[in-house]
Amino acid sequence: MAAAASSSSSEDALRRALAAGGADVEAAVDALKALKVEAGAAARRLQAAVGSGGGAAREEMRQAVVNTLERKLFYIPSFKIYRGVAGLYDYGPPGCAVKANVLSFWRQHFVLEENMLEVDCPCVTPEIVLKASGHVEKFTDLMVKDEKTGTCYRADHLLKDYCKEKVEKDLTLSPEKAAEFKHVLAVLDDLSADELGAKIKEYGIVAPDTKNQLSDPYPFNLMFQTSIGPTGLSVGYMRPETAQGIFVNFKDLYYYNGQKLPFAAAQIGQAFRNEISPRQGLLRVREFTLAEIEHFVDPEDKSHPKFADVADLEFLMFPRELQLSGESAKSVKLGEAVSKGTVNNETLGYFIGRVYLFLTRLGIDKTRLRFRQHLPNEMAHYAADCWDAEIECSYGWIECVGIADRSAYDLRAHSEKSGVPLVAHEKFSKPREVEKLVIVPSKKDLGLAFKGNQKMVVEALEAMSEKEAMDMKAALESKGETNFQVCTLGKDVVITKKMVSISMEKKVEHQRVFTPSVIEPSFGIGRIIYCLFEHSFYTRPSKSEEEQLNVFRFPPIVAPIKCTVFPLVKNQEFDNAAKVIDKALTTAGISHIIDTTAISIGRRYARTDEIGVPFAVTVDSATSVTIRERDSKEQIRVDIDEVASVVKQLTEGQSTWADVSAKYPSHVGPQGDQE
Amino acid sequence: MAAAASSSSSEDALRRALAAGGADVEAAVDALKALKVEAGAAARRLQAAVGSGGGAAREEMRQAVVNTLERKLFYIPSFKIYRGVAGLYDYGPPGCAVKANVLSFWRQHFVLEENMLEVDCPCVTPEIVLKASGHVEKFTDLMVKDEKTGTCYRADHLLKDYCKEKVEKDLTLSPEKAAEFKHVLAVLDDLSADELGAKIKEYGIVAPDTKNQLSDPYPFNLMFQTSIGPTGLSVGYMRPETAQGIFVNFKDLYYYNGQKLPFAAAQIGQAFRNEISPRQGLLRVREFTLAEIEHFVDPEDKSHPKFADVADLEFLMFPRELQLSGESAKSVKLGEAVSKGTVNNETLGYFIGRVYLFLTRLGIDKTRLRFRQHLPNEMAHYAADCWDAEIECSYGWIECVGIADRSAYDLRAHSEKSGVPLVAHEKFSKPREVEKLVIVPSKKDLGLAFKGNQKMVVEALEAMSEKEAMDMKAALESKGETNFQVCTLGKDVVITKKMVSISMEKKVEHQRVFTPSVIEPSFGIGRIIYCLFEHSFYTRPSKSEEEQLNVFRFPPIVAPIKCTVFPLVKNQEFDNAAKVIDKALTTAGISHIIDTTAISIGRRYARTDEIGVPFAVTVDSATSVTIRERDSKEQIRVDIDEVASVVKQLTEGQSTWADVSAKYPSHVGPQGDQE
Repeated sequence: MAAAASSSSSEDALRRALAAGGADVEAAVDALKALKVEAGAAARRLQAAVGSGGGAAREEMRQAVVNTLERKLFYIPSFKIYRGVAGLYDYGPPGCAVKANVLSFWRQHFVLEENMLEVDCPCVTPEIVLKASGHVEKFTDLMVKDEKTGTCYRADHLLKDYCKEKVEKDLTLSPEKAAEFKHVLAVLDDLSADELGAKIKEYGIVAPDTKNQLSDPYPFNLMFQTSIGPTGLSVGYMRPETAQGIFVNFKDLYYYNGQKLPFAAAQIGQAFRNEISPRQGLLRVREFTLAEIEHFVDPEDKSHPKFADVADLEFLMFPRELQLSGESAKSVKLGEAVSKGTVNNETLGYFIGRVYLFLTRLGIDKTRLRFRQHLPNEMAHYAADCWDAEIECSYGWIECVGIADRSAYDLRAHSEKSGVPLVAHEKFSKPREVEKLVIVPSKKDLGLAFKGNQKMVVEALEAMSEKEAMDMKAALESKGETNFQVCTLGKDVVITKKMVSISMEKKVEHQRVFTPSVIEPSFGIGRIIYCLFEHSFYTRPSKSEEEQLNVFRFPPIVAPIKCTVFPLVKNQEFDNAAKVIDKALTTAGISHIIDTTAISIGRRYARTDEIGVPFAVTVDSATSVTIRERDSKEQIRVDIDEVASVVKQLTEGQSTWADVSAKYPSHVGPQGDQE
Repeated sequence: MAAAASSSSSEDALRRALAAGGADVEAAVDALKALKVEAGAAARRLQAAVGSGGGAAREEMRQAVVNTLERKLFYIPSFKIYRGVAGLYDYGPPGCAVKANVLSFWRQHFVLEENMLEVDCPCVTPEIVLKASGHVEKFTDLMVKDEKTGTCYRADHLLKDYCKEKVEKDLTLSPEKAAEFKHVLAVLDDLSADELGAKIKEYGIVAPDTKNQLSDPYPFNLMFQTSIGPTGLSVGYMRPETAQGIFVNFKDLYYYNGQKLPFAAAQIGQAFRNEISPRQGLLRVREFTLAEIEHFVDPEDKSHPKFADVADLEFLMFPRELQLSGESAKSVKLGEAVSKGTVNNETLGYFIGRVYLFLTRLGIDKTRLRFRQHLPNEMAHYAADCWDAEIECSYGWIECVGIADRSAYDLRAHSEKSGVPLVAHEKFSKPREVEKLVIVPSKKDLGLAFKGNQKMVVEALEAMSEKEAMDMKAALESKGETNFQVCTLGKDVVITKKMVSISMEKKVEHQRVFTPSVIEPSFGIGRIIYCLFEHSFYTRPSKSEEEQLNVFRFPPIVAPIKCTVFPLVKNQEFDNAAKVIDKALTTAGISHIIDTTAISIGRRYARTDEIGVPFAVTVDSATSVTIRERDSKEQIRVDIDEVASVVKQLTEGQSTWADVSAKYPSHVGPQGDQE
């Protein structure tokens, strides 16, 4: 699940545990532990909310990048001539090419290198699938409405803005009040609808545009709803993630893979999220491309055969303990993080390593990339462990890839809802004798005792763990009856000896049937690309030093256009040479542009640097040309019929600039002087 | 526009023209011409509806293909464990790979080779955009409802099924009745809601499942509707085509292209169509991938600089005249079709040629591919010319690519609705003196004469062509007044001399401002892929001749997996060699599978043939291996360290099998014998 609303706060858990009575000491201790965890989360969130200075410089840097991106059509606000729609953006030509390159590298790095099974499922999804996954019930944000105009706001945004404004700008604020607002900012994500509503009332927060009163907060489902077919009776949604398409196909994919585990399925596609009020520009949008992997593995063996390949990687990790103690992320060797148990298992660790390699090869700055472990209260109850690849940009640290061990949750949920068992089998080499718990409720006696509630009691008895069952067996044998809590009834009932038979029986088994665990790396492609734009952008003075020129230092693999071809001056000979090169580049499948405008070569270089073209071919003779590298501005001289193969080697990674510089003569010519 | 509901029939046009009175002879003649056109369309549609025999064989062939496709997970009915949703399909691993390969080749063949500007716009689209394009009003099918259960049916489907059943199975049918049913089948697409409803009543057609009465037919909009944002007030749709995203960006793209025409923009993406009752399996689905090109061109110059590259291509064309005279498609040279005016212009012709090359290089059988020109009554009124690439498969001739000259319609529609001029400029090298028609209605006099209708009269006057205006000027000067038809009022009015001034004025112009024409090739990727599956499928006997084995003869560029690697027998030496090859193939970016199962090599070949893998590498020594070509079953012997580069050359098209067969020794070994 790509993202879900967070559950109620751990304070709540504590209150509940204490209310449950003195007996439940264990639960209270757990809740106290959770409170400590929350304190850590609080510190972290506070930093994110209030910021840590340098805001103006960051804002300025962001503006420079975004201006260049919009001017060069990397992005276009969608439906601009109709004044656009918040949270929807187009990729213009260079942005679209970057996206295609990122996805193509993703396929090479994950699908091909790991032999994954790629699938492609529709966006339109029937309700039942998203009921099973929990999205219909839980994929919500809390919303308030302007009571007069009906304008909607995210409740937590309003509270956050109010507290931030107070903390940052109200000079008359008492230290106690300041501490209170900071506390609210810290626990914001954990507040229930009632708590949020109470705070909004307490602070007298009104609609920002009209100063009207606001409604109480209520959950708004973030899925775009539609109906499938003409009757209007069949509810559908635009998928909020691609993962469910894989889960529902588990059975077929498992057979396709020869009934062997582990294996991974992957999917690239659009996902949708009807944000209440999109913010953060390109980072929080209503439609986006996800690339998701579901790696299915035996829960009893999460080792990974290729873990050794990534064990020596060392990068910034931010495990729970560091977050709780208020420290920063530290450089850690991945092998150690797994062997010490910081990362739950080898497979999870393997994917963390592969994600690190993927992002840094794309051009993400490794000093601004960290892997942050989820705190227990951020994590779904079923998850075994979860790490986010966070990239720092002008908006702060942004979650770009989530890597979660989701245990058997998703497959179980769909097994239950669909009635189709989504399980794997391990055939034993020789049959094994196992002891199995057998619980046989006596429906007749239970029916007499509990009437309409019989079914709930039967289900609760059958669901007992081995320990619970053995305790009950002992109690029934010694006392003849025992109290038994039936959660679905919300109360204890008395079970007598004749109502249930409990025994351990020996059985011969030929195979083990189990629900696989799933380890899910989920990539927000748009967020990765936006961060990559910020990390790749720099300015440098023009030759005259009169202006700053923009450059994107994209690695060749990502660059939207691999090379530009300029005839140095306009003449037939150079134009013909350019045509020969054009044809060779096209045949080699290398995206390029021919620039025959009459402006100075320096200006033409600047134009191509600004969209991150790594190589510029200047035609200054009929037989050989110069190739210039964008960042070093170095040039080499290459024969015309070698140009396409040199550029192809450089852009596909078989050669580096250093390799070709060593091979071909360097060039310091008139066109260099004109920059 | 990918597809729109057809307009009312030409019989209607005739009736209207005759009703308009004897004066309108020209219109009546036009309508008679149209009737002749309709007769041609009728013949064609009748053939499509009734079929031309061989139905059972076709059905059987289709079943064989579809069974293989589903068993090998090329396709999976979406959400299968929840019993699926009609019209939604997943691509499983090999299907997904084929799709990625087709799209990647599309990008190479069109975007890269033609320097197109690729964009990527959201699927969620605000209502205003689709109002401007006409989809909100016209993207409909006629539907009837079961009056008791509410089940919906496409009205034309029910009528078609009824007539077909009668024609094919009712042996008691009189020749007159048979002719009538055949006529209905022929004109089916042109029937209005009223006409369809009348036929359904006349024939007593009832709901097929319940035999209940049916409602009158009414239009059902085929777009999936949703709402954007939390208020529920902002209507949005899932886009029915990708084209609109390009049109609304015309202005930015034109500037990006240096304000030069022609240029083309392209987009690949999902499109949605909420079919009333999907039929035809994989050909008519509710969500599909489109690849669309919008080529913007000066309406006064539709020549194409690269037309000579395709002029000599010769393939099946099916122009209007052949359809009207009941003949079949004929092999025609593209250059002649354009020079004779059969194809409206060079640019349209160029794209027809490029589409032909694209489809045949993918593996579409050129004898089952034809380009069919739209008949006038199939074409939107604004279109200059339109051709469909139709591919023959077991469902008949299927429209897979539409190539339309849509004139200035789309840009004008969005200019009007948005108020943003979507125009191009041609700067004159020296200023030109031009004569321009100037019409100045006197609003005062018109207001006095026509009161509330003044606005309609003014608009009609301003909309006159040069000829109409000059005729009016002459009439007013000679007689002082004249009759004038105002369509929006549905009647003639009398215009007097003082109500309007008409003149030709000389003006000096520095540039020409105009709305570009757009030529739109629009590719239904899923349909192309499905037809490709049928065209690639064949069976051949196993070595023992005891069974028929399935083969897909995909060209290497399309094949989901490029090669399989088999160690001949299980031993450490061969396994190690396989690992070396595995690594080299991965580095070279070649998708492959290693098959180490212990079954016979013949069985392993059969398994790989069935998903269309073109090359099989059998490891039978530690130093060299054999490579087998799928269709010829020929083998060559290649050194281990050359395998990856040989397979890469073969799959990327630098070498053919004949090339490598000439270079490497052929092999007739034991593994061949085992097939």
